[in-house]
Amino acid sequence: MHVPFTIKAKDKLARTGALHTAHGIIRTPAFMPVGTAATVKAMTPEAVKSTGADIILGNTYHLMLRPTAERIAKLGGLHKFMHWDGPILTDSGGFQVMSLAKLRTLSEHGVTFQSHLDGATYELTPERAIEIQHLLGSDITMVLDECTPYPATKEQAANSMRLSMRWAERSKQAFTPRKGYALFGIVQGSIYPELREESCDALKSIGFDGYAIGGLAVGEGQEAMLSVLDYTVPLLPVGSPRYLMGVGKPDDIIGAVMRGIDMFDCVIPTRAGRFARAYTDEGERNMRNAQYADDAAPLQAGCPCPACTHYSRAYLHHLFKAEEMLGPMLLTWHNLTFYQQLMQGLRDAITGGRLQAFAQEFFVRYHTQSCDGDDKS
Amino acid sequence: MHVPFTIKAKDKLARTGALHTAHGIIRTPAFMPVGTAATVKAMTPEAVKSTGADIILGNTYHLMLRPTAERIAKLGGLHKFMHWDGPILTDSGGFQVMSLAKLRTLSEHGVTFQSHLDGATYELTPERAIEIQHLLGSDITMVLDECTPYPATKEQAANSMRLSMRWAERSKQAFTPRKGYALFGIVQGSIYPELREESCDALKSIGFDGYAIGGLAVGEGQEAMLSVLDYTVPLLPVGSPRYLMGVGKPDDIIGAVMRGIDMFDCVIPTRAGRFARAYTDEGERNMRNAQYADDAAPLQAGCPCPACTHYSRAYLHHLFKAEEMLGPMLLTWHNLTFYQQLMQGLRDAITGGRLQAFAQEFFVRYHTQSCDGDDKS
Repeated sequence: MHVPFTIKAKDKLARTGALHTAHGIIRTPAFMPVGTAATVKAMTPEAVKSTGADIILGNTYHLMLRPTAERIAKLGGLHKFMHWDGPILTDSGGFQVMSLAKLRTLSEHGVTFQSHLDGATYELTPERAIEIQHLLGSDITMVLDECTPYPATKEQAANSMRLSMRWAERSKQAFTPRKGYALFGIVQGSIYPELREESCDALKSIGFDGYAIGGLAVGEGQEAMLSVLDYTVPLLPVGSPRYLMGVGKPDDIIGAVMRGIDMFDCVIPTRAGRFARAYTDEGERNMRNAQYADDAAPLQAGCPCPACTHYSRAYLHHLFKAEEMLGPMLLTWHNLTFYQQLMQGLRDAITGGRLQAFAQEFFVRYHTQSCDGDDKS
Repeated sequence: MHVPFTIKAKDKLARTGALHTAHGIIRTPAFMPVGTAATVKAMTPEAVKSTGADIILGNTYHLMLRPTAERIAKLGGLHKFMHWDGPILTDSGGFQVMSLAKLRTLSEHGVTFQSHLDGATYELTPERAIEIQHLLGSDITMVLDECTPYPATKEQAANSMRLSMRWAERSKQAFTPRKGYALFGIVQGSIYPELREESCDALKSIGFDGYAIGGLAVGEGQEAMLSVLDYTVPLLPVGSPRYLMGVGKPDDIIGAVMRGIDMFDCVIPTRAGRFARAYTDEGERNMRNAQYADDAAPLQAGCPCPACTHYSRAYLHHLFKAEEMLGPMLLTWHNLTFYQQLMQGLRDAITGGRLQAFAQEFFVRYHTQSCDGDDKS
């Protein structure tokens, strides 16, 4: 194993452990804040670290367009460029090509597209995706895949998945193995159990340092997503880290951890923070809501983040009404802290063999307390 | 004196000392970052403190409209509201009423205006301006004045100044004297020496804890501004702090310190930071300029701020091109650090009796080094 993965405790299907990368240890289950363009939006790296994050995610698509992987490599790699000395996982760019780029043409060879920034034409192949991630210096590299759109017929899903499996093989060939640096495969197959199984088999026969589950959180709903995990996770090698891509809300994460997932990434806590939405133990709060204008209480009592320890809900409300940058800064900080506190809670609960109780307590507290109601502001 | 002012050293007309307020000591000459709406834009208070700032400025006009002074008072005052435990100076609101508000009507009694936010009608009188600043808990309260527009005829300037002097008297009457809290008068009179003298005499006969010079940095140019200081500063009490309002660029500050000014405030370092403009020992740099795309050097070698210690110019350039919030955050941090380093340099130079040499070295370095040329990006 290029990145040793130690499972320290199990609780039914859930596990807690540590993944050892070139830039440090990732405690699992882990949530990775998204640092799309070489920055976790509205946060300094020191602030990200202070939330408890061990690893962040970078987006290959954005970085290959601007400032370019070659430029980052010349400047010493992504870690140095963005002053983050912990592990970095980069995606392959495939998902963003499909969701952001223009004039996409998909072939066996790869995908050509036009940049959403300036219309320039680029090509992304399995080999180029790996090369870019090498140039960035990613601790965890992802294979190029096609994130199968949802919904898809079984035939569409099969064709898409099989292309991704051939790309996975080419990605493996292009990857330079070295200690501390991992290559993860990505299971596709939409909501079809046989296709997920075929994909798992294909990836296992190629052999990866970890296995991601892709093509979820794309509109299928939580129940369908968890159902896919129910039959897919048991097909993955028990000793390898499992990564559920692009997930999710707190209850998605808890449900997935209970099904054996070890790693997550999602823009929700950072994006929500920029738009005044706070995640708390008592549910979600829209800090633009007028009910907070005179509320002297902290956003969440006991939360160790600066937003909660130094300020009132009234102040946070004021910052968003006045469109002051400190609002997004503080609420991003809080939401990332909330997510990391959740992950620490999950790790502790698994260690203590009380994950079921932890999850139930969380759900009751999170969904039944009176909060600020709907999203109007 | 409600706020004892100790002059520790002099160098010709310049002085360095300390002003003792309820929330701490202000080392002079001092630069006050502007925290308009209860936040220094893009900065946490901890970050502001780390730049070396002893005191910040709050804008009465903005705060009276939103979230309102009464609300801030109920929440424990401005210091607690915004989590800044150092001294705060608040302006009177008069300047912003004239520059931002709509449908202004000026009378002997005060000024009525419509909020630029929602069109609601407000009245600001000398008494109300003082009341608001009491509610905020300002360490240094400013009298309400009319900032005489530039240019103004001598008659216009005289009428405006005399109204301000009558308002200064009413402000003094409305102010509740207490230890650690200061009330500053404001000298007006445009560019007319006799009017400035008349204004100084009026203020001195009322008696204030400090004296501000207003109506400058409004388009008259640096030479005219420094000329006003040449004949106005000697008219002010030697033992009281002197505050040049709304100034300025580094060379404005140096010129004013050499003429005996002790305090400054200006939005330049924060506003410039949000718009990619960096102040450095070698002059100003526009970080959006393409010349920085591959520049691995720090923004300014030796600067202790995070932007300079952790990142390259290339990274700062990237952040602004990608419109990432961390760009304004880091560059504001740098610019405020640059300004505070300048103030420390001025204080040290005065203490060492070498202010003239310090100023000359600064000007030579600042204006003659090759930098990035013009502002295009």
